[in-house]
Amino acid sequence: MSLKPRISKGTRDFNSQEIADREYVFEIIKKNFQLYGYKPIETPSFELRENLLGKYGVDADRLVFKILNSGEKLRNADLSALEENLLTKFSNSLSEKALRYDLTVPLARYVSQNQNEIIFPFKRYQIQPVWRADRPQKGRFQEFYQCDADLIGSDSLWPEIEFIKLFDSVFTDLKLGAVNLKINNRKILYSISELISINDRFSEFTSILDKIDKIGIEEAKKLILLAGISNEKFKKIEFLFLKDISVNDRILNLKSLLSNSKIGTDGVSEIEFIFNTIDQLNLKTISLELDLTLARGLNYYTGTIFEAVSNTIEIGSIAAGGRYDDLTSIFGLNNISGVGISFGLDRILFLLKEQGLLPQKNDDKIKVMFTNFGNKESLFSYNAIMKLREKGIVCELYPNNSKLKKQISYANKKGIPFIVLVGENELYMRKYTLKNMLNGSQKTIDLQALISSFTKK
Amino acid sequence: MSLKPRISKGTRDFNSQEIADREYVFEIIKKNFQLYGYKPIETPSFELRENLLGKYGVDADRLVFKILNSGEKLRNADLSALEENLLTKFSNSLSEKALRYDLTVPLARYVSQNQNEIIFPFKRYQIQPVWRADRPQKGRFQEFYQCDADLIGSDSLWPEIEFIKLFDSVFTDLKLGAVNLKINNRKILYSISELISINDRFSEFTSILDKIDKIGIEEAKKLILLAGISNEKFKKIEFLFLKDISVNDRILNLKSLLSNSKIGTDGVSEIEFIFNTIDQLNLKTISLELDLTLARGLNYYTGTIFEAVSNTIEIGSIAAGGRYDDLTSIFGLNNISGVGISFGLDRILFLLKEQGLLPQKNDDKIKVMFTNFGNKESLFSYNAIMKLREKGIVCELYPNNSKLKKQISYANKKGIPFIVLVGENELYMRKYTLKNMLNGSQKTIDLQALISSFTKK
Repeated sequence: MSLKPRISKGTRDFNSQEIADREYVFEIIKKNFQLYGYKPIETPSFELRENLLGKYGVDADRLVFKILNSGEKLRNADLSALEENLLTKFSNSLSEKALRYDLTVPLARYVSQNQNEIIFPFKRYQIQPVWRADRPQKGRFQEFYQCDADLIGSDSLWPEIEFIKLFDSVFTDLKLGAVNLKINNRKILYSISELISINDRFSEFTSILDKIDKIGIEEAKKLILLAGISNEKFKKIEFLFLKDISVNDRILNLKSLLSNSKIGTDGVSEIEFIFNTIDQLNLKTISLELDLTLARGLNYYTGTIFEAVSNTIEIGSIAAGGRYDDLTSIFGLNNISGVGISFGLDRILFLLKEQGLLPQKNDDKIKVMFTNFGNKESLFSYNAIMKLREKGIVCELYPNNSKLKKQISYANKKGIPFIVLVGENELYMRKYTLKNMLNGSQKTIDLQALISSFTKK
Repeated sequence: MSLKPRISKGTRDFNSQEIADREYVFEIIKKNFQLYGYKPIETPSFELRENLLGKYGVDADRLVFKILNSGEKLRNADLSALEENLLTKFSNSLSEKALRYDLTVPLARYVSQNQNEIIFPFKRYQIQPVWRADRPQKGRFQEFYQCDADLIGSDSLWPEIEFIKLFDSVFTDLKLGAVNLKINNRKILYSISELISINDRFSEFTSILDKIDKIGIEEAKKLILLAGISNEKFKKIEFLFLKDISVNDRILNLKSLLSNSKIGTDGVSEIEFIFNTIDQLNLKTISLELDLTLARGLNYYTGTIFEAVSNTIEIGSIAAGGRYDDLTSIFGLNNISGVGISFGLDRILFLLKEQGLLPQKNDDKIKVMFTNFGNKESLFSYNAIMKLREKGIVCELYPNNSKLKKQISYANKKGIPFIVLVGENELYMRKYTLKNMLNGSQKTIDLQALISSFTKK
């Protein structure tokens, strides 16, 4: 009748050491978010289904976890949709809620819903898990944390500058080693897609570019040609895929290539401003790279886009973000531009672990275990335990009156440095025998001396 | 086309002030968990459906949120179950995963799965959200945090003693005012149910008792009689529902009433040990009450059960817990007894708010806003911003070159105490004008003096 204890695929348990490692990264990110003037919000784990779907693109929508309706609502199952193999329609008839896919769309809902209380420009950070129905594989999880900061309600480029500095501050504090921050602009990409007449399928175009990391540039070129672009047109934009061109040359190329396009020209001058400004601000850890093949998968980006990768170990993007000009308009709040970034906890942790950069857990609270030789002895121990805890000393009573060897072995396995033995003799004398597990020394002392031995330096 | 921005019913957003309030409670609970020797673990938000269902009781099972399968798996929909109105069977055919309903069953899965690495007795704490498909109403949410500590692998009663002390420490630190800790024992309840021959429907019996808070004692009596108990039998146990009987008298009554039952006698002596021991340990905030009508809804409890209620404001249970003798055996790990407690964040917060006991947010990091009068000025400002952030001072640049009035109004609304103005003059002189928003004073100084004015005491 018993079940094999199994965790759901693509999810993880965390023990106390892993939690300490994760907290280390969270704290550094949080500290910098606050230093830059961002304040926290939290949103619910699930949103109404219609709030989430249709914002990310078709591929991503498929990865949104839907929550099954319960009770009588199940009768609304759209069986004809199932018969016609319209599985999305069928599943929508069974679900009103869905798990958070990212922190940006919930933010747009939050900002629109609370627009009258919020002080704009609104600077918020949010550190919460998100869920994606991705096929589980090494390093890819169905539940993982995102650490986001966003600035909503400014069309200035200074937020972009601030976020580049914020990337730099976080990666510097983490001592992560050299990080490459790829940057591009959706306006430039859109203008290019116009140039090769694929702008009516812009998201197809960006989704091909977005795959370059996985499939390589040559395959991506093939896909673009397959998408119906003539060789002649493709030649115009082939230089985008070349490496080893200076930023200045790239910008000059783009300026002439896109000179007839308002949106293209805007995108180029945004990029130019960012590079010129950052040039005069000292970056410590990251280097900025103009990567015209960077696309970012999500539909909602409209301007600058970022992606950070480690130069030390190749594991894909460790942070990313971008400008979304009108995300809140889905929720009826128009003309609000936002920009935001997101740190991926898991890959950052992987990099830190691989390079031995996680701090040794420094558990500075003294730990004491009292042995248990019976109820009378334990009650006597408990008086000392209460006093020690009042002084902030971590104490525990071994719960059972087990053999001493077993009790000592428990303390050893848990790395508890001090044991207090209370047996018949101690009880009679109203004293405690304190044993130092590291050097084996022991002494029998009264309550006052016991407390002093932990509190006096 | 735009959506009305709506949050899913029964869920909540939290702004930065609310997050600070919540953190205040979490930190006190966490500090005490650690002081008593507990260490954190975390488990995933969803578990395999079969891990959760069937552990809590029928009423609770209905409140478990199921996650809808995606893609081709939807074809496995059991349509004949739908036709026959077997809605649970139908929904199970569409779902393999379910959201965490509490932290105890995931703990049992965790312990069974990691039994070879875990040091027993295993003392863990866990602070994570849980989800319940309850009808949303005032003070009842579909997503809420539980703060649990459990000790797994000891059948001693000292863990019960420790948890009573832990309740007391947490409530004392929170300065919550007087708290009543009701205590009972499932063994006693089982033995009573034998006495009135309803033991074959024990969970029905406990579920009636469990409703006393809502429906009152008289209604509960009626339900017990309706369950087929004769008046004569019921008279035997009527004293359980009487108030104003001393603990000692109750225990004497129970001893004689249940003298023929091994399990009943065991339960009574457990309760007796707990009361006698706690009598000799100084409780600061809580008082212990033997409440023989306390049942606790969940199926898995087998021994001592606890429920804490405030004596100051009546809002139901603010913490609870109990002994579960064999929960891990569902996952194949037998003969492991556990006991645990859980604090409910929301009701504790409600009590603190109502009594004005939440600390004023003490945001001690100095905050500075730099005005934005254009890109050159902002770039000059940015040098100061970088230096100040290095010193841990929270700084921000107003993102847009807006009218000064608008920029100042932003700083005022956000309660930012210092503004640095950098206009044409300042840029020319390479100086900064620092304005104290509290007293209106201002001075124009160089970078070094600006930094000193925030870092020198």
